[in-house]
Amino acid sequence: MKPIVSIIMGSTSDLPVMKKAADLLNEFQVPFEMYALSAHRTPKEVEEFSTQAAERGIKVIIAGAGMAAHLAGVVAAQTPVPVIGVPLTGSLEGLDAMLAMIQMPPGIPVATVALNGAMNAGILAVQILSVADAELAKRFADYKKNLAQKIVKANAELAELKYEYKCN
Amino acid sequence: MKPIVSIIMGSTSDLPVMKKAADLLNEFQVPFEMYALSAHRTPKEVEEFSTQAAERGIKVIIAGAGMAAHLAGVVAAQTPVPVIGVPLTGSLEGLDAMLAMIQMPPGIPVATVALNGAMNAGILAVQILSVADAELAKRFADYKKNLAQKIVKANAELAELKYEYKCN
Amino acid sequence: MKPIVSIIMGSTSDLPVMKKAADLLNEFQVPFEMYALSAHRTPKEVEEFSTQAAERGIKVIIAGAGMAAHLAGVVAAQTPVPVIGVPLTGSLEGLDAMLAMIQMPPGIPVATVALNGAMNAGILAVQILSVADAELAKRFADYKKNLAQKIVKANAELAELKYEYKCN
Amino acid sequence: MKPIVSIIMGSTSDLPVMKKAADLLNEFQVPFEMYALSAHRTPKEVEEFSTQAAERGIKVIIAGAGMAAHLAGVVAAQTPVPVIGVPLTGSLEGLDAMLAMIQMPPGIPVATVALNGAMNAGILAVQILSVADAELAKRFADYKKNLAQKIVKANAELAELKYEYKCN
Amino acid sequence: MKPIVSIIMGSTSDLPVMKKAADLLNEFQVPFEMYALSAHRTPKEVEEFSTQAAERGIKVIIAGAGMAAHLAGVVAAQTPVPVIGVPLTGSLEGLDAMLAMIQMPPGIPVATVALNGAMNAGILAVQILSVADAELAKRFADYKKNLAQKIVKANAELAELKYEYKCN
Amino acid sequence: MKPIVSIIMGSTSDLPVMKKAADLLNEFQVPFEMYALSAHRTPKEVEEFSTQAAERGIKVIIAGAGMAAHLAGVVAAQTPVPVIGVPLTGSLEGLDAMLAMIQMPPGIPVATVALNGAMNAGILAVQILSVADAELAKRFADYKKNLAQKIVKANAELAELKYEYKCN
Amino acid sequence: MKPIVSIIMGSTSDLPVMKKAADLLNEFQVPFEMYALSAHRTPKEVEEFSTQAAERGIKVIIAGAGMAAHLAGVVAAQTPVPVIGVPLTGSLEGLDAMLAMIQMPPGIPVATVALNGAMNAGILAVQILSVADAELAKRFADYKKNLAQKIVKANAELAELKYEYKCN
Amino acid sequence: MKPIVSIIMGSTSDLPVMKKAADLLNEFQVPFEMYALSAHRTPKEVEEFSTQAAERGIKVIIAGAGMAAHLAGVVAAQTPVPVIGVPLTGSLEGLDAMLAMIQMPPGIPVATVALNGAMNAGILAVQILSVADAELAKRFADYKKNLAQKIVKANAELAELKYEYKCN
Repeated sequence: MKPIVSIIMGSTSDLPVMKKAADLLNEFQVPFEMYALSAHRTPKEVEEFSTQAAERGIKVIIAGAGMAAHLAGVVAAQTPVPVIGVPLTGSLEGLDAMLAMIQMPPGIPVATVALNGAMNAGILAVQILSVADAELAKRFADYKKNLAQKIVKANAELAELKYEYKCN
Repeated sequence: MKPIVSIIMGSTSDLPVMKKAADLLNEFQVPFEMYALSAHRTPKEVEEFSTQAAERGIKVIIAGAGMAAHLAGVVAAQTPVPVIGVPLTGSLEGLDAMLAMIQMPPGIPVATVALNGAMNAGILAVQILSVADAELAKRFADYKKNLAQKIVKANAELAELKYEYKCN
Repeated sequence: MKPIVSIIMGSTSDLPVMKKAADLLNEFQVPFEMYALSAHRTPKEVEEFSTQAAERGIKVIIAGAGMAAHLAGVVAAQTPVPVIGVPLTGSLEGLDAMLAMIQMPPGIPVATVALNGAMNAGILAVQILSVADAELAKRFADYKKNLAQKIVKANAELAELKYEYKCN
Repeated sequence: MKPIVSIIMGSTSDLPVMKKAADLLNEFQVPFEMYALSAHRTPKEVEEFSTQAAERGIKVIIAGAGMAAHLAGVVAAQTPVPVIGVPLTGSLEGLDAMLAMIQMPPGIPVATVALNGAMNAGILAVQILSVADAELAKRFADYKKNLAQKIVKANAELAELKYEYKCN
Repeated sequence: MKPIVSIIMGSTSDLPVMKKAADLLNEFQVPFEMYALSAHRTPKEVEEFSTQAAERGIKVIIAGAGMAAHLAGVVAAQTPVPVIGVPLTGSLEGLDAMLAMIQMPPGIPVATVALNGAMNAGILAVQILSVADAELAKRFADYKKNLAQKIVKANAELAELKYEYKCN
Repeated sequence: MKPIVSIIMGSTSDLPVMKKAADLLNEFQVPFEMYALSAHRTPKEVEEFSTQAAERGIKVIIAGAGMAAHLAGVVAAQTPVPVIGVPLTGSLEGLDAMLAMIQMPPGIPVATVALNGAMNAGILAVQILSVADAELAKRFADYKKNLAQKIVKANAELAELKYEYKCN
Repeated sequence: MKPIVSIIMGSTSDLPVMKKAADLLNEFQVPFEMYALSAHRTPKEVEEFSTQAAERGIKVIIAGAGMAAHLAGVVAAQTPVPVIGVPLTGSLEGLDAMLAMIQMPPGIPVATVALNGAMNAGILAVQILSVADAELAKRFADYKKNLAQKIVKANAELAELKYEYKCN
Repeated sequence: MKPIVSIIMGSTSDLPVMKKAADLLNEFQVPFEMYALSAHRTPKEVEEFSTQAAERGIKVIIAGAGMAAHLAGVVAAQTPVPVIGVPLTGSLEGLDAMLAMIQMPPGIPVATVALNGAMNAGILAVQILSVADAELAKRFADYKKNLAQKIVKANAELAELKYEYKCN
């Protein structure tokens, strides 16, 4: 099946974080591809990737990068496809990557999510794809209902721990 | 024509910034609506708005908020529709609003753009809608080509200013 | 005995910090309850909790949350009961949670304490309850006198270590 | 009528901000007093004020301070009365005052509100007093319902501005 | 005379700052060119500029940019010519631009100078060119000696102001 | 009378802030001198000044500087005389100057005061000189008592404004 | 021998850092004392300590504190003796303690040194005492000359490591 | 062979980071020297080093320093040779060193690279030297082409991991 989401990152050392986006997409059975690309080391490949993404059928791009994180912005500049940015921590608590991604100039937005928030990037991709895919939209609505389960489980655990008022 | 994008903000004092999102959508002839809503002052209305947005046909929500900017996240929690957050400056250079929007927990992303980046929020909305609207996608591709014009004009101005090497 | 303080948090992973509030309340024999609630995953439950807290006899709410910490503010928006916020560390040294809690807009305060300051949240709850409970006020006055003991002990330790001027 | 809230500040230059706390208390007919006190310039007076506040009938103290804002913490150290801190801007966007107020050590909380958030400090005082005053609690519940009016007015203004989708 | 330094910036609004680099180069009679280029709006032109700079005889590139300042890094990625980055203020006190410029990954340095430090960028360019131009090196050594004159003048002014100890 | 305090700064543009140190010293009749010196533009003069200060009878040095504020540290490195640093604002809210002054490595302290805190630098100089001058110590003790007067005046103003509880 | 420097800290957990000040003073044979004192837990003791320090013969006070570090400022407010502040890390990289110490209002300086810079606080104390003690001044001048030895040793190590250009 | 690049640092504890600059220069067969120098502990040696560097044939200086990192700026003030600064982490995430290096005043630039970016400092030195050395320029152009190899390798690894869409 042809991928419709592209997950890109600067190196395989980013994989432990970025794979959460892949896991989420697999959970929703959204076909995706995964590439290592660097705005700085492979500018030609980035250009090629960006300018061809739309016609290759890619609907959403997820880009993870750290430090002076240019990858998301540089790709966004060269494609009409919406780009989701995942700022990766590493130095300065990740503030460098967050600001280098989110503070894009008028004309070229990057939809930035939380530090290391690759899973949320996957969810956002599903939400975007749902605009054109009623069945996926349905699956996402179900997923959202299940989010509360984690809290139900937490309450059960709290109850079990019996951390409560000890009347004397 | 029925609105498909909803622009929400906490008060009319946010309008000078948030209207840039409206302007952009008008430029693309995307029908939108505009509301004042506050996560803190009108929680019921926010809940009503959020839970009904999808069935009312809203495809993208743009939320502008400042300080402890909860609006985008609270709406995102209650709707499957993708939510774009615009952090508004006011105190602490806007760092409070940016962090309160972008640092969402796993499960509920907010697609955060630059400080006061309402125009880019409008563009991102157009990009998302283009996933399901080939004609809009075409218009957006044209728009993107024209972005370079600003630079062409800048170069013309630079040339006119003749700020250049003065050989002695 | 019916609880008069409610300690809420987003997940059981917050328990190691938030239990210090519970410990403090137990020390003062203030009946409390403890729940997992998420502004983002269980908005309905949060609403229900918030709008019913006052009539259930809850006098003070202590809310711990991290990242884009909306829980305290969202609850405060829907209850007249005073809400104490405990920003939890995790990313950006906890600056995200602190700003997302403290920078509430006019009309809806959150009484924010130090990063991970759950014990102090418990103390603040006792101080607030003491406004209406003379006997508790008495116990708190005694507690306050005992705080100095930690310093007395520290001085004894310093004396024992004999880390002092070595005259030659 | 004897004051039950004490509003303290370092100098009359803080009055334009701190008077919002006074205005709010007047709105709720809560008797208050207002003093200039400095942790650094009048330590004796601060000590006297703090140690006598409770027996003078003060139920809540609101302290505004800027820079290395010690006033709230130093008062809190010497009284069982709950202390609300209002960090005032002036240098470093107010980050110095916020951290110097909120980061209190275990044992001595300061209920910190937003930068220049004196009105919210007044509201928090009303919420605390409501624990022991059913009639005040009733008035506060009404106040809270009226908060939504600001949003209603904002929506009316937005509607009048007719900033809306312009179908071509 | 053929330019050997290229000063690039995102728009003519950056000119008031960036012209200080041009002024400095004129002072040293170093031939330069000046272009508006945007990593985001004119990626093709940036690529063309970057890949041809060396063979066109450009020896140093000075790039000014604000916000998520990618221009310097993107150019540096595509040319062997040393790139000097000038972070421009605008939002977040310029911290966004500084971090987005300086925090480049291993392999692609940007020689970053102070916020709005265009004059220093010009000086750095002269220092770099001096490695291969003994006559320019000589002129720069003279310039450096003259820097102290500003201080001499300041001392003369201080003496004139007679701001001094007033013996009673 | 021979100066015993030296006030140094990078340029006459720093005078409006730094003259507060001079005013304070005049108030205490402490003879001082004032110089413009730059760690970067007049390193030789800085070295000469620093290495001769002690034998010229200078007992305390007050150094004001902004940005990458090296002056205080560089002087401190070359003299046994205690150096008080005054970080001056200008960019990044003065955080650059504060960190460049205070974060000195083991062996070479700079006694750093608040941003633009030149008056406090003067006071600190008086406190240091008082160690060896009983009469000055006496004058400083009196000064300290008078500090409270500002608060007394503030309270009189507050009383006059009659900003108080308005009983209905 | 009677102590002339007083080293104070909030708890024995601060001893591993603060003992470096004691070590330095021992190296210079400056008699000192060491106490645990808390601006928040033992305000009475702090007041007693501060108001009596001068007449007890204390010439310099070194105060170490973390978080909302009030100790140095509160002591400085109540004594004419110069107070050196050592901000201790623990949360927010120590930024809270640094700002809460250094940003003192006009009238009450705290001579703040680097984060955890207790050794430098000791050196600064020696420099201050040297104003009135020619023999100590002599010892300090010698100490300063020896500081360079660390660098000499470093160069010897570098030479031994033979980390140098490997000509092929 | 006579060194043309000088790598300086404050202590051998900086060697694990700074040796990456040396490694890079060895890779390009650029002769270099390595010294420990401290702006604060060995000011005389720093002056001697700085004022003689040019005539000794040094073409580029690389200076690594942490905390209030004055070394690069102090050297730059006393030599016409371009100085590359490497801010070293240690406290405050390295923000202190970065600001103390990059925020140099007009007249004395330091070409600052990323936190701990010693390898990039080496590359920048090679780029600067290439201005006058066509053969080195050639080697650097080749090096730049090889940078992409890391990405190629990353893509191979990603392919091997087969982290891809799992069609059900």
